Amino acid sequence: MSAPRYETVSFLSDYGHADEFVGVVHSVIRSIAPHVTVIDLVHDLAPFDVRGASLALSRTVQYVAPGIVLAVVDPGVGTSRRAIAAEVGDGGEGVLIGPDNGLLGPAALMCGGVTRAVELTNPAYQLVPPGPTFAGRDVFAPAAAHLARGVAITELGPEIDTHTLVPSLIPLTRAEGDALVGEVLWVDRYGNCQLNVDPGEAAPLGDVVGVRIGDEPRRSARRVHTFGELRTGQVGLLVDSYGLLAVVMPQASAAEALGLEPGTTVRLEPLG
Amino acid sequence: MSAPRYETVSFLSDYGHADEFVGVVHSVIRSIAPHVTVIDLVHDLAPFDVRGASLALSRTVQYVAPGIVLAVVDPGVGTSRRAIAAEVGDGGEGVLIGPDNGLLGPAALMCGGVTRAVELTNPAYQLVPPGPTFAGRDVFAPAAAHLARGVAITELGPEIDTHTLVPSLIPLTRAEGDALVGEVLWVDRYGNCQLNVDPGEAAPLGDVVGVRIGDEPRRSARRVHTFGELRTGQVGLLVDSYGLLAVVMPQASAAEALGLEPGTTVRLEPLG
Amino acid sequence: MSAPRYETVSFLSDYGHADEFVGVVHSVIRSIAPHVTVIDLVHDLAPFDVRGASLALSRTVQYVAPGIVLAVVDPGVGTSRRAIAAEVGDGGEGVLIGPDNGLLGPAALMCGGVTRAVELTNPAYQLVPPGPTFAGRDVFAPAAAHLARGVAITELGPEIDTHTLVPSLIPLTRAEGDALVGEVLWVDRYGNCQLNVDPGEAAPLGDVVGVRIGDEPRRSARRVHTFGELRTGQVGLLVDSYGLLAVVMPQASAAEALGLEPGTTVRLEPLG
Repeated sequence: MSAPRYETVSFLSDYGHADEFVGVVHSVIRSIAPHVTVIDLVHDLAPFDVRGASLALSRTVQYVAPGIVLAVVDPGVGTSRRAIAAEVGDGGEGVLIGPDNGLLGPAALMCGGVTRAVELTNPAYQLVPPGPTFAGRDVFAPAAAHLARGVAITELGPEIDTHTLVPSLIPLTRAEGDALVGEVLWVDRYGNCQLNVDPGEAAPLGDVVGVRIGDEPRRSARRVHTFGELRTGQVGLLVDSYGLLAVVMPQASAAEALGLEPGTTVRLEPLG
Repeated sequence: MSAPRYETVSFLSDYGHADEFVGVVHSVIRSIAPHVTVIDLVHDLAPFDVRGASLALSRTVQYVAPGIVLAVVDPGVGTSRRAIAAEVGDGGEGVLIGPDNGLLGPAALMCGGVTRAVELTNPAYQLVPPGPTFAGRDVFAPAAAHLARGVAITELGPEIDTHTLVPSLIPLTRAEGDALVGEVLWVDRYGNCQLNVDPGEAAPLGDVVGVRIGDEPRRSARRVHTFGELRTGQVGLLVDSYGLLAVVMPQASAAEALGLEPGTTVRLEPLG
Repeated sequence: MSAPRYETVSFLSDYGHADEFVGVVHSVIRSIAPHVTVIDLVHDLAPFDVRGASLALSRTVQYVAPGIVLAVVDPGVGTSRRAIAAEVGDGGEGVLIGPDNGLLGPAALMCGGVTRAVELTNPAYQLVPPGPTFAGRDVFAPAAAHLARGVAITELGPEIDTHTLVPSLIPLTRAEGDALVGEVLWVDRYGNCQLNVDPGEAAPLGDVVGVRIGDEPRRSARRVHTFGELRTGQVGLLVDSYGLLAVVMPQASAAEALGLEPGTTVRLEPLG
């Protein structure tokens, strides 16, 4: 084996914190590759929500430290879905590891696309499981740890055609007359609602915009640069910290006030 | 003092994440033994639930990295319960640290039993507390950190007879005619319900098994190898990732659907 | 640049665990200063609760490892509130980084006061944000990481008069006749209610004390040293692990039983 290759594994899952799943994955990596630091990106994603997790990963991936990303949201565990490792960047600069169910796609795109991928099938780099269902512990964590130690990615299993990887669908906005129809991608802890809307797309609508959600009466929202420009109870449209338009309220949950959740359709209309 | 001896402290508690308890324990260990990596196994265990925590620890311990396990679920803090450090494996390969209340027992058994134990009474290896109630910070974390630095276990306090350690009771199944009566050990985040039933014990019941919970009408459950074999709404019996039989439903919470929680009695019966 | 200066960043926020905020801050620090260990103190503080967070930080700071404290509870992000780094102790032994909104004040006092402070304005040590609202990622984490690498604090921005830092108000008790009127500072996971009352202040009230909360009938509480001295359902006054008086119940939530939360006024009266 060559020298240790990666120092950091950045880890995202829907394991939550009520059980020991996250801790066991850390333990397995620590046992195989003690030189590695594991960074927890987020684990309280909604169980089985591959779409939400793929968006969280794509927001995060531009900030992760160089090395390996381990992502496990895996409703198809135990079925025929493939477990994969996918190189991104030049010369395997980074590796994404997880189930081939669309979870890794948007992050891979952010990194310039997958240059090489393998299916994780070599039992020499897996734990022998007492049962079949904990792939994070038995398949994904060992793969990450062995790669970090310098094992070649091609040792982990056969190379697969990158065109066969399950794609992810990022919802697009559409124009309806003067209006722009988008949807909520993400509701954060504070109740801010990120839309799939680029600030430039919404520019023609002006500084005060009509917001229509389902059959609710239209509300007006002010384009602002900071929360501080809004009065208590006022709805704003703000370029959020990832560069997308978000529906917000100052020190309050816009999600709760307006009944928004991931996937809700939001229609932005010119006023007056 | 000799050279640093342990590199890893694996830490489990019922401290939760709402307060700074976990962070303070990390800080104390970091201050005394900066070379140590602390792995968080799980902290959102039910408050004061020694039995549930001892089971979580016994599931986890086979995967933890070599070194020290620090476990704190301690309803008797401030009473006469002993604080202990217990060596397991040959030559003190591993050390379990925590209250002597049954929490460490099942994990110690998984490691082949306790070979030597001391009571943590030496104030030279404790913090001077402003009050008496935070043993994790003042007694257990310093003990772990000093051991990791190479302090001999016998420096931490007097050796105690390992036969006087508080035992843990793991519930056994019992046969009632053709039926097998067990109980729920653990409900995980996804609502899967681990039973105290070995797959072999249940084999004579066949491929479709009657499941009776309290006075509820009997339901039938299919023995399956993966979630993918079950249709939506169908109940399955699956060998879980720890090798025990679990009551599951595909992408749904069996616990919620069937009203199961840790300790619930489950009766498995042959059908037809 | 000089050699690495700090090895540890202790991190507290109201980011919670549902989103990737904490993970992104870790990632940014890891990317800039890979030698640093980040210790998570606590992140599930109530959103925007600067007062509660400043108290949590002041409880914790005496235990943190030497180095940098990064604290982000920042309802004024995007307004004119300053982002600061404040040296405490001799010769910049420790540095507190966060918004200048009162959050850092009590912790700074515990460390002997601020000796030098700068406003974080130098874009060379910040990330270029896609939007204006994630100061933890774009301003505070880079400042912590660059300081840890050995960048001089005065490189991060202009020095500011330490007398202009926003102060924090710690509520004082007051006497009303024989009674002592205090308030709840903190309710922990177990429902124990820390008061702003020094045990010595309450000594004249005797061993059994009347406790009055709002218009509720007076209850009696026993001064005890440990939870073990209390019977089920009994209310106790105990010197807690931080040396302050706390209203407690054995293996039960005093907060729930008595309707206490942070800020609730509690009147302690002599009985008989």
